[in-house]
Amino acid sequence: MTVDGTGRRGALLALDFGGTKISAALTESGSKEWLALERRLSPVGADATSDQRIALELAGEVLGGRRPAAVGVSFGGPVWAESGAVKLSHHVPGWEGVALAERLKGEFGVPVAVENDGIIAALGEHRYGAGRDVSSLLYLTVSTGVGGGVILDGRIWHGADGMAGHIGHLRLEPDGPPCVCGSRGCLESIAAGPAIAAEARRRISLAPHAGSVLLELAGDDPATVTAWHVAEAATAGDPLALAVMERAAAALGIAIGSAANLLNPDRILVGGGVSKSGDGLWKTMRRLARETAMPEVSLHLAPAGLGDDAPLWGAVALAEDLTGNGSEGAR
Amino acid sequence: MTVDGTGRRGALLALDFGGTKISAALTESGSKEWLALERRLSPVGADATSDQRIALELAGEVLGGRRPAAVGVSFGGPVWAESGAVKLSHHVPGWEGVALAERLKGEFGVPVAVENDGIIAALGEHRYGAGRDVSSLLYLTVSTGVGGGVILDGRIWHGADGMAGHIGHLRLEPDGPPCVCGSRGCLESIAAGPAIAAEARRRISLAPHAGSVLLELAGDDPATVTAWHVAEAATAGDPLALAVMERAAAALGIAIGSAANLLNPDRILVGGGVSKSGDGLWKTMRRLARETAMPEVSLHLAPAGLGDDAPLWGAVALAEDLTGNGSEGAR
Repeated sequence: MTVDGTGRRGALLALDFGGTKISAALTESGSKEWLALERRLSPVGADATSDQRIALELAGEVLGGRRPAAVGVSFGGPVWAESGAVKLSHHVPGWEGVALAERLKGEFGVPVAVENDGIIAALGEHRYGAGRDVSSLLYLTVSTGVGGGVILDGRIWHGADGMAGHIGHLRLEPDGPPCVCGSRGCLESIAAGPAIAAEARRRISLAPHAGSVLLELAGDDPATVTAWHVAEAATAGDPLALAVMERAAAALGIAIGSAANLLNPDRILVGGGVSKSGDGLWKTMRRLARETAMPEVSLHLAPAGLGDDAPLWGAVALAEDLTGNGSEGAR
Repeated sequence: MTVDGTGRRGALLALDFGGTKISAALTESGSKEWLALERRLSPVGADATSDQRIALELAGEVLGGRRPAAVGVSFGGPVWAESGAVKLSHHVPGWEGVALAERLKGEFGVPVAVENDGIIAALGEHRYGAGRDVSSLLYLTVSTGVGGGVILDGRIWHGADGMAGHIGHLRLEPDGPPCVCGSRGCLESIAAGPAIAAEARRRISLAPHAGSVLLELAGDDPATVTAWHVAEAATAGDPLALAVMERAAAALGIAIGSAANLLNPDRILVGGGVSKSGDGLWKTMRRLARETAMPEVSLHLAPAGLGDDAPLWGAVALAEDLTGNGSEGAR
């Protein structure tokens, strides 16, 4: 256990650049509680510079004058994990090639590690969440995108370019909706929140009567329909909303079953806002995953355990590894 | 290097239970040539007992009185790699639970290891073939089925049930053709040889004129059309055959691109009879794989190097590891 000059355990600072919001949290080595946690929405017109300024402000607030023993950072986009530099963000401009770990090292004077948010959330679930007791894990988060990460033999599997774990880009419908990655018909383009909302709006434009409950929830304005509205309306029995949620759930199940045939992990965890949209989604997702996975492939599919904090707890695991207290968490 | 009582290098025996044919081969530790190789077709009505008898006969022929230092075995179906017992064969009856490694240990009095053929072929390509210089590898073989194997950090990735690497069961068309695994629309049900032949026959029944070249190759009897005929007719410009090959190649490319997004391996190798059906297949497969893989995922797609011998060379690698001469090849 790291002990600082004052005899206290080492403080671990976790930062999360989430694309739409930024978080900073503080804990101590060995603890499972936050000493402090601050979140702020990334403002309209945000760029890499403003996001970093906000993160430093939040970090100052949670640190309250303490010096961290190490800093772990979750970034919502591809990174070079070895150097801690950002490749790019699909959501916030100006991040291309930013040497994020270097800058934060300069700021805090302590070791800093940076990981992609899907990968780091998988690490968080493995170290502190619903994947603690297994050695291999496939993690999915279904929210504004479909992110993911792979843990094999207890360690992050990065892949050749640090791009492993992108289950959101299993391509299910070759002629399906365009995807942010440049392809079409990826899982993300069918099952992420914005895809669910877009599909609902498309179906309302074709058959508004079928989505009356949904439309009411959205204040009778199809343009304001969100995935949350669709999930609510589906729970209330709205047939249009049910069909849209079924489509997303089936796509998730097929992708999960396919990934299980390729990777055969001990456990598969699903988190993110969309994963909380009710039993209907889980039932269809489980059925299609089982139907897709080979009979000899065991399928242990469960909800993620850490919710929106998974990337932050993954950042804690990274920071802990930097202090030499955790098990080695990356390769 | 293993040296036997006579001062010679240790002989390594490789056996391959391929479903339709059985092979035995002999080499020496450190060699890249066969001392002897024998193959025999599995007769009509074959079962586990007759296949084992044939394998022992072939082994006797290639050994010619020598005693092997170790035996590696490739099996065309799921196995328990740790114990060397067979789970089942989808092609030959009577294999359920056969303790193959134990029986062969009893026969030869030396260490024996057994692996699934897709997995062991991946190991063969990694140790002796087109994947020697990389640490992570995804291998596909496209023939009567679509098999595969995954090498990560230079070692076989087995997965929780020893079922990892089944890229043939990435599900691409949820309502597609029934697959031998019990699901529908798997890559194997679209791109394997029998699937290609079946799709050609189906299209001929709808529009015979479009497949005139193909029909001629098959002696004007649609029932005798094989994947080989389809590939030949496609090369000759037959539009029906071209469309069928395009469909298979596109499915392969999409599955490869999707798998690359999930695993991001250093290299992807494609072998098997179907992979040798011409530039057209490779062109479409490469295009769809690149279109499906994320821009940040590098895609190094190449033909497998060892052809039909990949499982046998993988068996050599297994045997070599048993003698303590190879690098550790499994986990």
